[in-house]
Amino acid sequence: MELVEPTLHDQRPDIDRLRDAMDDLEFEADLSVLKTLPTVLRKNDFKVTAVVVNEALIAVEPGDTSAQNYAIGIDLGTTTVVATLLDLVTGTPMAVKSMLNKQQPFGADVISRISATMMDPLAAGLMQTAGLATLNELIAEVCAEAEVSEDQVYEIAIAGNATMVEILLGVDPEPVGVAPFITAAQKWPVFTAAEIGIEMLPSARVFLFPAFGAYVGGDIVAGVLATGMDRDKRVRLLIDVGTNCEIVLSNGDQILTTAAPAGPAFEAASIACGMRAADGAIEVVQVTDEGIKLGVIGDAVPVGICGSGLVDAVYVLHKAKLIDDSGRFVTDEDAMKIAPHLASRLLTREAGDRIFVLHWDVDEPTVYLSQRDVRELQFAKASIATGWRLLLEEVGLVDDDVQQVLLAGSFGSYLSPASAIGIGLVPKLPVMRIVSAGNVAGEGAKMVLLSSTERSGATTLLDEVDYVELSDRPDFNDKFFLELALPS
Amino acid sequence: MELVEPTLHDQRPDIDRLRDAMDDLEFEADLSVLKTLPTVLRKNDFKVTAVVVNEALIAVEPGDTSAQNYAIGIDLGTTTVVATLLDLVTGTPMAVKSMLNKQQPFGADVISRISATMMDPLAAGLMQTAGLATLNELIAEVCAEAEVSEDQVYEIAIAGNATMVEILLGVDPEPVGVAPFITAAQKWPVFTAAEIGIEMLPSARVFLFPAFGAYVGGDIVAGVLATGMDRDKRVRLLIDVGTNCEIVLSNGDQILTTAAPAGPAFEAASIACGMRAADGAIEVVQVTDEGIKLGVIGDAVPVGICGSGLVDAVYVLHKAKLIDDSGRFVTDEDAMKIAPHLASRLLTREAGDRIFVLHWDVDEPTVYLSQRDVRELQFAKASIATGWRLLLEEVGLVDDDVQQVLLAGSFGSYLSPASAIGIGLVPKLPVMRIVSAGNVAGEGAKMVLLSSTERSGATTLLDEVDYVELSDRPDFNDKFFLELALPS
Repeated sequence: MELVEPTLHDQRPDIDRLRDAMDDLEFEADLSVLKTLPTVLRKNDFKVTAVVVNEALIAVEPGDTSAQNYAIGIDLGTTTVVATLLDLVTGTPMAVKSMLNKQQPFGADVISRISATMMDPLAAGLMQTAGLATLNELIAEVCAEAEVSEDQVYEIAIAGNATMVEILLGVDPEPVGVAPFITAAQKWPVFTAAEIGIEMLPSARVFLFPAFGAYVGGDIVAGVLATGMDRDKRVRLLIDVGTNCEIVLSNGDQILTTAAPAGPAFEAASIACGMRAADGAIEVVQVTDEGIKLGVIGDAVPVGICGSGLVDAVYVLHKAKLIDDSGRFVTDEDAMKIAPHLASRLLTREAGDRIFVLHWDVDEPTVYLSQRDVRELQFAKASIATGWRLLLEEVGLVDDDVQQVLLAGSFGSYLSPASAIGIGLVPKLPVMRIVSAGNVAGEGAKMVLLSSTERSGATTLLDEVDYVELSDRPDFNDKFFLELALPS
Repeated sequence: MELVEPTLHDQRPDIDRLRDAMDDLEFEADLSVLKTLPTVLRKNDFKVTAVVVNEALIAVEPGDTSAQNYAIGIDLGTTTVVATLLDLVTGTPMAVKSMLNKQQPFGADVISRISATMMDPLAAGLMQTAGLATLNELIAEVCAEAEVSEDQVYEIAIAGNATMVEILLGVDPEPVGVAPFITAAQKWPVFTAAEIGIEMLPSARVFLFPAFGAYVGGDIVAGVLATGMDRDKRVRLLIDVGTNCEIVLSNGDQILTTAAPAGPAFEAASIACGMRAADGAIEVVQVTDEGIKLGVIGDAVPVGICGSGLVDAVYVLHKAKLIDDSGRFVTDEDAMKIAPHLASRLLTREAGDRIFVLHWDVDEPTVYLSQRDVRELQFAKASIATGWRLLLEEVGLVDDDVQQVLLAGSFGSYLSPASAIGIGLVPKLPVMRIVSAGNVAGEGAKMVLLSSTERSGATTLLDEVDYVELSDRPDFNDKFFLELALPS
């Protein structure tokens, strides 16, 4: 805008002069803007650019800066945090960076993080600081990479689960962690970066995705938005596999959601040779005529097994009948009969513990699947399967009615659809119906930054989606035990 | 409220549980409330009191605290700051404290304070800190006196001139100080105490009175509200005498306002023996048959003369014809003829400077009125008289149409109505029509705290009142010179 300069005949206050020049916009000015307004106007001969976000005047900049207009979408994961810098003028992502959440030392999953706050009164504050440090580092990185000034990033949208969001805001998350699992809020007001402690333009606006419930958080709301589940007539399941597994079912009519406590098996944390998906992790296991064939991250010597490798291993060994439907390794005797080329890998260790060796270093088995690992996976997948099966029952549908299963989250991208079907993690469907959905939380965050319709859609979703509490169901345990078996 | 405790069948988030329990109120919760909400609810068995100010949930307190509900009204003067603690349940003032504005070292009036910011880049910040320190000290004092917790003071209303408000907020006031005299804003958003730096409940709301113009600020808006000028059919003048003199004229139809630059005469700063209204200051001067009679503050030995004493002195000496209509002391010869009992007090000093002695210490004249002092007062009163006369002309009225003159501000309380009329500071009217209005700014601040109708009235006033800029008028100088004479 090029404003008319004030005179004794035109003594409108600075903010009214600005307001009159853009009379199609209603806004309230931030104190930070009012503080600098007289100086900015006069230093730049009243030629300035005003930045209005949702009826808030958050910046007045020298000259014409209308071509610089950025926002950042954040997928605030318990494990990994991903930031995407968006050019709001063109709608183009300019830079993407990810980083392990610096809260990791306080626990791998939300329950251990909440427990940490209950054990140590300082932990919540330290985790908040660590979470903010993660965000601030990522914001600085994406801005540096795209050569964008942090002062021209006007909005940030954060999709995270309820615990991550509460810890970030400094809310005590204890009630989220213990029955009856209560959040402080489902929807959050729009905050300023300064209020929350995010280091960017202090008046930049922070949109936090609302949550469906204590264990189906803003990341899933963002995912539902990104996958268009609220607009699709098909029967679709969105499954975000993790320690806490979130499940959404839509049938064009209703949307149901629930959370299934899968435990740490998929993150391979409780697995004998488990490791996270990094170099040396077995991520693919296949049975061939000669024996087994491994896919190892980084084409390195195998040093462990990650979540997708675990699912593969159990699936192929069950298919080869070395693991029976109940999940038990067959006897050595039976193994020799059933699969002689694999039988030598089945060993019995001290205390009768049985393992299936995936890799030897000389004569020493270094990476293997234990009987206990199979049990862990069975518990995890049974929990998830109980979740989606109960949702299907709620709307009177069966497995085969599901037209698409979206596997969300980073783990979903690596999981083999055939193996997922094979162990019963997802309904028994043609492989083509199982789709990896990628980082849907990040996609949803981008969508709300680019469109105010999508943003109000995120809030409207709360009314459209029914949250089903599993721990509340008398039939949960019965169904869970039924799901423990591997599908024959 | 006593909330129903959550169960697995009722997992409403804490804030929704609270909201549902008071469904007649719409509000958005502050982050500070959301942070502590889960803890406060659970520590107090879900029995709490919610504090909502204008659709903002600013506190949730343990148990039933509905009887503790306070606010503070502030008259933020350039010289003196007054704080009044109000019990909002009963509407009663609980404590009043006043203090010199700690910004005094930066100048006695708004122009010198603005100049200070132009000379020294650090001055604005230091003055902001000093202003806040004044407020914070007063707030602590009134709370301590009334034994009220600062956390239960939920609102503060501040009435101050535009410069005081801008300095307090950290806005550069320079454009207010130089033509064409522009403020950053006329109306301010409602801020939180934390945003501004006021040390009380961080989420307490701060209402800043809007301003009519750069030199007719929120204190005058508060004054108009307190005196009901917007609701009265009479022709009334409100005059706040000071270095900058604010004038408001209402006639039941229109409200006009202007500011007259009176200079420091009324604060006695530019007066030979001038001093502020403290012990030893001559505040009343009368002529008797024997000579003169002085009223001295604290019944002390006179050491100087304050504003009201100055007005009295010029008035009585003009009435005694020792000062002619042009403001000149008569010759010693004429004085002996006109008023022999006073003539010995009229002396000629070095360089021909003439004085009228009010008090001698032995043989030394220690308190006197100089020819130059009379000139200073003439300039000051001419400026003010030009102001109200121009306003009267604007609506086609003359002096005698004025039914009431309200003298506002602390100076207004001490000024003798007869003297004010006598020197032409106010229109020539029966003395009864001149009324001291007291601390109208503070009264207005109390009114907006007790009534939301009054608060919106303060904002509505801006549309009802026309601001007349005097420096803009081609006829100002002519009229000013006409007003310099003392009324015969």
